[in-house]
Order: sequence, then C-alpha cells, then structure tokens
Amino acid sequence: MLPFARVAVIGLGLIGSSVARAVREAMPNVRLTGHDADPQVRETARALALVDDVADHPGAAVLDAELVVLCVPVGAIGAVAAELAPDLPAGVIVTDVGSSKASVAQALAEALPGVAVVPAHPVAGTERSGPEAGFATLFRNRWCILTPAEDADPVAVARVAEFWRRLGADIEQMAPEHHDRVLAVTSHLPHLIAYTIVGTASDLEEVTQSEVIKYSAGGFRDFTRIAASDPTMWRDVFLNNREAVLDMLQRFSEDLSALQRAIRWGQGDELFDRFTRTRAIRRSIVEQGQDDARADFGRSHE
Amino acid sequence: MLPFARVAVIGLGLIGSSVARAVREAMPNVRLTGHDADPQVRETARALALVDDVADHPGAAVLDAELVVLCVPVGAIGAVAAELAPDLPAGVIVTDVGSSKASVAQALAEALPGVAVVPAHPVAGTERSGPEAGFATLFRNRWCILTPAEDADPVAVARVAEFWRRLGADIEQMAPEHHDRVLAVTSHLPHLIAYTIVGTASDLEEVTQSEVIKYSAGGFRDFTRIAASDPTMWRDVFLNNREAVLDMLQRFSEDLSALQRAIRWGQGDELFDRFTRTRAIRRSIVEQGQDDARADFGRSHE
Repeated sequence: MLPFARVAVIGLGLIGSSVARAVREAMPNVRLTGHDADPQVRETARALALVDDVADHPGAAVLDAELVVLCVPVGAIGAVAAELAPDLPAGVIVTDVGSSKASVAQALAEALPGVAVVPAHPVAGTERSGPEAGFATLFRNRWCILTPAEDADPVAVARVAEFWRRLGADIEQMAPEHHDRVLAVTSHLPHLIAYTIVGTASDLEEVTQSEVIKYSAGGFRDFTRIAASDPTMWRDVFLNNREAVLDMLQRFSEDLSALQRAIRWGQGDELFDRFTRTRAIRRSIVEQGQDDARADFGRSHE
Repeated sequence: MLPFARVAVIGLGLIGSSVARAVREAMPNVRLTGHDADPQVRETARALALVDDVADHPGAAVLDAELVVLCVPVGAIGAVAAELAPDLPAGVIVTDVGSSKASVAQALAEALPGVAVVPAHPVAGTERSGPEAGFATLFRNRWCILTPAEDADPVAVARVAEFWRRLGADIEQMAPEHHDRVLAVTSHLPHLIAYTIVGTASDLEEVTQSEVIKYSAGGFRDFTRIAASDPTMWRDVFLNNREAVLDMLQRFSEDLSALQRAIRWGQGDELFDRFTRTRAIRRSIVEQGQDDARADFGRSHE
C-alpha cells in the first residue's frame, strides 16, 4: 500500500526536485503537486514536468495533500510553514529535509500547532543546486534520519519512514539534539572547513589563483566540491546549529594545533601515529556502501 | 626520438609502479629496470611484470640507466641517492617525484655531486598505496612541475620534460621554494586538515564511530579519502616543507576564526558573502580539466 496518494513538494531545488523525480519513479500513481518561491524555478519545473501541477501560490499546492515535504533552506522553514498553515487539509502530515533539526522542530511546532509534523533529514546531496540538478537515485542507499517529537503519532512516523524507504533510503530515528551533534561533525564542520580553505587559497598573494587551480589535483580540488554548495542553505545551517558547530570546531582547532606543534618541533613519530589511525574509517565507509569503492571516488583518469 | 632508452625506477609503490606502467604503454621499447627496498614489493613487481628486471640491490637497477626516477618518500631520497651514487653510470640523469622540492634539491645535490639532477613533481595520485595501486593513465592531463637548479644543463631538463610529456603530463617549471609554497596550499594543507578532522571525528564520545560512518555522505566522507593516504609519505612531506606548511596553516586558522566569530554572532551576511566567493574556483578547476566534470566527482548513485 502506498504510504501517501497525494504529495506536495514545497521548494524545487536539488533536493525537492530529486524527491519529485524519485516519487515519480518509485510511486508513479502518486499525484504530485509542487511550488517554489522563485518564478523561474517554477517555469523550469513545468518545462521538466517534475510534478503534475506547479502552483503559483504555495497554498494551492497543498490544498489536497496527504504529505507536504518542505524542501527549503532551514532558515525559511518557519515562515513557509506559517504561510501554508491556513490551507493545510485535515489529517495532513508535514515533513521537511532540513540539515539541522532542533530549530526546525521548534519552528514547525510554532507555525503548525495541532498538525502532525515528522521532521526528516535525508543525508544526501551534491554540490549542484536548482531544479535541473536533481535526480531520482539521489537517496538510494543513503540514510534518512527522522526526528519526531516524543509525543508524535507513531502511525504518522511509520508512514513518513515508508515514504523514504520507497525512495531508496534507509531509516534511522533519533532526538533532534543528537542529530544536530552528529551532523555537526559529519557534515557541517566539513563544509565550514572546505569553505574556509578555498577562501584562504583565493586570498594568497604570492601564489596566484591560476596556480591554485592548476595544481589542485594534489588534494585541494576535493575541498572545492563541497565549497561549491548552495550559500543560502549553508548560511542557514550554521546559524541554526550554532552551538554544536562551534563545539565541534573547537575540538577540531585543538587537534589542528597539536599537529601544528608536532610539525614545528619535527615530531615525526607523532605525525605518523596520527596519520595511521585514519585509514580504518575510510575502509568502513566504503564497506558500508557510503562511498564509491573505486579509487579516487571513481574519477575518470582518461 | 625517445628521450631515454633505459630507465630505472627506484621505489615501486603507487607512483613508481604508475611510472613503470605508463612508460610501458607510451614507450614500449624502453628497457625498464626497478628496485624497491621491500622484498615483498619486489616480489609483487615481478609477478606483475612491472619492469623488465627487478633488482634485489638498488645499484644493480641503475648500472646501465640513462634516467633514474626516485619514487621514494621525500625523507628517504638523500639516503637512497647516496646508496646509488657509486653505481651510477656516466651521463645519467637523476630525477624524483617528491611532493616537496627545496629539501629534495639540497639532499640530491649533496648526495650526488657532479651528477645531472632534475627534480620533478607530478601532481597526481590516489589514496591507495603499493605496486598494485598504480595505473598507466595516472599522469594524463596532470601537471608535472620541474624544479631544476639555475645552473642545470638545459638539455637534461628538456629530456626529463619530454619524458613526462610522453607519460601524458603537462610541464611547468619553477623555483623549488615557490613550488613548496604553491603545493603547501594546494596539497599539503588539505591533507593536514583532512587527517585532523578524521581524527577529531574518531575521538568523539557522544557521537559514535558507527554514526560518523553511517552519516558520512553529508560531506565527511570526502575528507576520509585523502586522509587514507600513505602515512610515511605524508610525515616526510610535513617535516620537509615545514615553514611553508606552518605559514599556510596560520592563514587558514585566522580565516577559520573569522568564520567562527561570524557564526557565534549570527552574522548571516558575512557567512553568505564568504560562501559565495568559492564557487568560481570550482568552476575553473573543472573547466581546466583538473577535476571530473560530473556532479559529485562522478560517484555512482546506483
């Protein structure tokens, strides 16, 4: 049985358009409606036929929906939910795809009193943005974390879980605060560091930008991928998961200072020991299907 | 005309075995000899027929060579060169593939007085190590930087440049000190940061290692790739390019502190501005063929 027969996707960028495409592929009988605040994105969504009906007003997209999936930057979720609230039908379930969850849970609870809310975070994405960047297999073999409130309706949670399973994801459930600490280290801190080093490299004087680009295959290019991610989305993530990010950043800075000291004092054994511990994690990530098993992410070498 | 008819590769790991494979493919008539200090690597090299003759003693590998390519960690280059010195034939040219160049140039000049030395650095690699990890196309469309001394024989430099061109590389030439500053930012600092964050994530208590692995697709997994690189090689790089690495690290730390402050004080515009500047570099890297043009490095999403 389909978990939902009518699904509305609000926000048709990389994630929203991937949700729409994945629903089309996995549950072709679902009636899909959608909306994006940007008229150009709506036009592209119509041209790509991402959903059955692209509404010009968000309320029109949700009028008849059983599930509403909010795919907007986390800083906008509260306002978007409040705008939708008057048009939400009885019995609807609202979920989202935001990368931070404690502030989102609070914003949704405030904007939608009495509505069944099941916040979610599919841990998947690419560095691209917009409705053309999405694809149906984005969530396949990725984890989707649900962070329902303790008193959430278990049937609503089960239906949202089944929805994501149909899109190819594995499901995990945890408290929003724990989610925010886990993702601070596995996602937010890596993005912050990548944005920083790409900025640092751009600002050098005696090493030109052209040299940075030419010799980026030495490792730098890896960081430029996630530093090309959507600036609005990431601004909102850092503002909405501030405490956890600052705590992880503090730990990272201490560890970096220890390595800096080992380099300054020529402590080769210390460096070797630290560089040896890190291989096992890579191996586990590949073994558990969370990264491409080929060398160099499967990059082409032709 | 072949730049060299007889080539000896000393060190048959990822890079040395890739040089041997690429020579076989691009210049099949070259007579290839090789040596590795590790008896097991020599056995594997024989089983894979990487070169025509794997010598048990390094001197035997170079006796008849026109070009000797040192593919050992930069900290070992001086000692290996000194061991080879008595057996080097007249007119030989010695080159290397080390990731830092000022200390290598000095070590080679001291170990090999009167020998034609043309230090080189092909900016290419993967996270894998050992003779099985190499492949013939590793250097294709990558840059190889030559850092000859100012009084180096221009004919020797031209022959080494032609050798690398035949393996598919583009050639650039610069002073070793400038090389070391450029690579400190495009390669050494990225590796140091990747090793650090993977270590930080491993040491957390309230976020388990299993969670770090499961949710690594949020960005963390990108860092684990270069943090899986060879620990001996990277220990030596940091000890041999200390000043440039410490300087770049200092700049990075200052920039990271600025972002930390912006997060703490909720300065969204500041974050947005910094996150917007970094997309252009990614675009240029892809346009110049220094990274895979596909989203997500071309990772499989099936």
